[in-house]
Amino acid sequence: MLLSFQDFAKDRYGVSAMVQSQQKLDRVLVRVQDLTPEKADQLIWLRARVHTSRAKGKQCFLVLRQQQFNVQALVAVGDRASKQMVKFAANITKESIIDVEALVRKVEQKIESCSQQDVELHIERIFVISQAEPRLPLQLEDAVRPDGEGEEEGRATVNQDTKLDNRVIDLRTTTSQAIFRLQSGVCQLFRDTLAKKGFVEIQTPKIISAASEGGANVFTVSYFKTSAYLAQSPQLYKQMCICADFDKVFCVGPVFRAEDSNTHRHLTEFVGLDIELAFNYHYHEVIDSITDTMVQIFKGLRDNFQTEIQTVNKQFPSEPFKFLEPTLRLEYTEAVAMLREAGVEMGDEDDLSTPNEKLLGRLVKEKYDTDFYVLDKYPLAVRPFYTMPDPNNPKYSNSYDMFMRGEEILSGAQRIHDAQLLTERAIHHQIDLEKIKAYIDSFRYGAPPHGGGGIGLERVCMLYLGLHNVRQTSMFPRDPKRLTP
Amino acid sequence: MLLSFQDFAKDRYGVSAMVQSQQKLDRVLVRVQDLTPEKADQLIWLRARVHTSRAKGKQCFLVLRQQQFNVQALVAVGDRASKQMVKFAANITKESIIDVEALVRKVEQKIESCSQQDVELHIERIFVISQAEPRLPLQLEDAVRPDGEGEEEGRATVNQDTKLDNRVIDLRTTTSQAIFRLQSGVCQLFRDTLAKKGFVEIQTPKIISAASEGGANVFTVSYFKTSAYLAQSPQLYKQMCICADFDKVFCVGPVFRAEDSNTHRHLTEFVGLDIELAFNYHYHEVIDSITDTMVQIFKGLRDNFQTEIQTVNKQFPSEPFKFLEPTLRLEYTEAVAMLREAGVEMGDEDDLSTPNEKLLGRLVKEKYDTDFYVLDKYPLAVRPFYTMPDPNNPKYSNSYDMFMRGEEILSGAQRIHDAQLLTERAIHHQIDLEKIKAYIDSFRYGAPPHGGGGIGLERVCMLYLGLHNVRQTSMFPRDPKRLTP
Repeated sequence: MLLSFQDFAKDRYGVSAMVQSQQKLDRVLVRVQDLTPEKADQLIWLRARVHTSRAKGKQCFLVLRQQQFNVQALVAVGDRASKQMVKFAANITKESIIDVEALVRKVEQKIESCSQQDVELHIERIFVISQAEPRLPLQLEDAVRPDGEGEEEGRATVNQDTKLDNRVIDLRTTTSQAIFRLQSGVCQLFRDTLAKKGFVEIQTPKIISAASEGGANVFTVSYFKTSAYLAQSPQLYKQMCICADFDKVFCVGPVFRAEDSNTHRHLTEFVGLDIELAFNYHYHEVIDSITDTMVQIFKGLRDNFQTEIQTVNKQFPSEPFKFLEPTLRLEYTEAVAMLREAGVEMGDEDDLSTPNEKLLGRLVKEKYDTDFYVLDKYPLAVRPFYTMPDPNNPKYSNSYDMFMRGEEILSGAQRIHDAQLLTERAIHHQIDLEKIKAYIDSFRYGAPPHGGGGIGLERVCMLYLGLHNVRQTSMFPRDPKRLTP
Repeated sequence: MLLSFQDFAKDRYGVSAMVQSQQKLDRVLVRVQDLTPEKADQLIWLRARVHTSRAKGKQCFLVLRQQQFNVQALVAVGDRASKQMVKFAANITKESIIDVEALVRKVEQKIESCSQQDVELHIERIFVISQAEPRLPLQLEDAVRPDGEGEEEGRATVNQDTKLDNRVIDLRTTTSQAIFRLQSGVCQLFRDTLAKKGFVEIQTPKIISAASEGGANVFTVSYFKTSAYLAQSPQLYKQMCICADFDKVFCVGPVFRAEDSNTHRHLTEFVGLDIELAFNYHYHEVIDSITDTMVQIFKGLRDNFQTEIQTVNKQFPSEPFKFLEPTLRLEYTEAVAMLREAGVEMGDEDDLSTPNEKLLGRLVKEKYDTDFYVLDKYPLAVRPFYTMPDPNNPKYSNSYDMFMRGEEILSGAQRIHDAQLLTERAIHHQIDLEKIKAYIDSFRYGAPPHGGGGIGLERVCMLYLGLHNVRQTSMFPRDPKRLTP
């Protein structure tokens, strides 16, 4: 009691009452990224997290963090801070959120460890807004450490499951912040490009009455007194919109695959960036529209997200993503020839295995110096029933995949827009016509030739950044073994 | 045989082979909306639907349609068209898609019934690209007829179930085209406004392991060997992103409610426009951010979608949507007082019934001349457990709804960001703590004060346009009785 009574600074620190909107404070809170020498000698208020803290005699050094920005701060015993106040500051747990009033001071020597290198903060008041528990399930500095770095010193890295189990903390790292800001950018670039091209955004239902593509790998939902399914793709609905004269449509939304695949690139729920458009005479009009959209995304990322790309590269080094204009388009037969030349044995109409796709990516990169290309004219036998056959060779089809760094990111085709041919192809594939009646009927009242494709958002982000697991680019990934958080 | 041999125009018409991408034609197809007097006397190619056709002696008049635009066209026996060709044209079924080569001609008298009033097309070649079946399940002109109009003449309107059962055709009407172009605009305005404010777009999972808000009204999914649920809102994940330092986030995506409500405003699946943001000292910062976003949407619609609004109004007349700047904010107690003055009997802490919400909307419109307002400070008892109590009066809460034309479009609140208080409130609501452990734990490692809300896209479109059923603004609506198309 006596001690605290003697504390001249006792109103300058403490744990604030929970912010419950008691009052409208007229206080301006400065952003960490705006703490530059222009603010020198100003007294400012700031809200930030305690990133690290280190007490040292009569001083306590803190690094205060806001997202990817941080700044050094200091509380020192003097006429603004008592010994008790320095001790209080030193005891604030890491990741707590605090409000500080501080004088901005220019520093002589750059602070290399912080994003704000030219100033530090001299704290005059310090209040805890939200206290973190003392034991964190993971340390942020461990979570961003490149694999292998600091192993000799016994420094830890954090394994992926621990990161995902504690995603709320893992998402605070500079790497995660950069990944998901870039992902937000991909969506925006995708939509802005298409809006400029005259596309209309549509919203398609995710609960559907019949499994769209045959019935395998589909999740079942109980729907009142009956059962329903989760859509494996919005394709049927995109096509209905084309038949309904929307001409060019896109949608961004979840797609669901009940596939028991535990690989680096499969999720049971992911975000589809879907495109569908009517064309005039040749489905290459569709390919051109999609590849141009991808190129606009790549350019937008390159031009506007360099900081994010470099931040991710610090932890996960990779080569810059390369693309050509116009986009390289190879035919399936050419790809098979390249693979055979490299020693692969495969038939003309065999599908590409994942290792062969990867190998093909490397061969294409060597030969054409691009990380993005289109593989056109797949064998008809390996594509879904609604794929338009090649008019010149019945073994092939008007269909294509697109690849980034040797992995598939889009599958698409000219679709059959003729009810009769569609029926024939469904019968050939032994699909129950009754189940796809509504789909086939959509083409009975005049349907323009059209095509499209679906892009996996998480894969695009993973491959653009040269990452190796799609769970890194899904905020809250879902796979056969993970449903939380 | 003889007759057709004698047809000098036989290469100028017919049914084209199915467009299978046989060739890359160098032909430019003009858009209907670009058919203006500047194109007079030009020979152009056009692809369009046959909207109507009428043979009259040696002529056949067609109206050709592209989306909301249409133009009159004519095939007449002469040196470019034979009798057989006119007959062929007259027999093309409505809604078929055709390619025509035609001379653009300026007309003396405006063609009032078409969007292109100053020109007509003199067809020189006509080919069917996709043939519609002769019997349409509904007539487009019936589907856009205002209720009651032409009843004396025995003209039909189309009931809603027939429209929805045949959505591919119903979506071709001018009304549907306008509604869903405007809906696309709402999404774009929402995102553009928030992007400018520094919000990050997030993607939240729809398959979740535990029912987020207690467990009622949730759809169950079979998930490999276990069960999961469909998210009733992205709220938990939005909040986790705030705890993960994203500061301001939004998402656009499906939300699922297993509610057996067969009303004009309930869907089992709808599109949520969701916002969540950290604030400094008072949750009115959140309200201001959301209301400003809504105002930007209203302004954008007013300024850029007048054609669409007027098109919808032709079939469904309504008053222009009114809003104030800044947005009107009323407190719950004021609303109760207004309702009581109007004769309603209700307790201070009773929830608003739907009829009372409607009535309140009318009272507010009379008094303040606005169709949009915020109702603030709901009784704590009628809100979910995670709602922050009012610091000054424990019977109330820091929560709000927003209304358009007297119907709720958004529900939101300051959320409890303190794990201890959250636990207390969950216990008070008799919620199983084990089930919401991950949620509560999100707040243990430093959480900023924050709030947000979720907006129903279909409701916003319905109410902005003054429509009376949310199925009109959902492309493929889902309700307890409808799962198709």
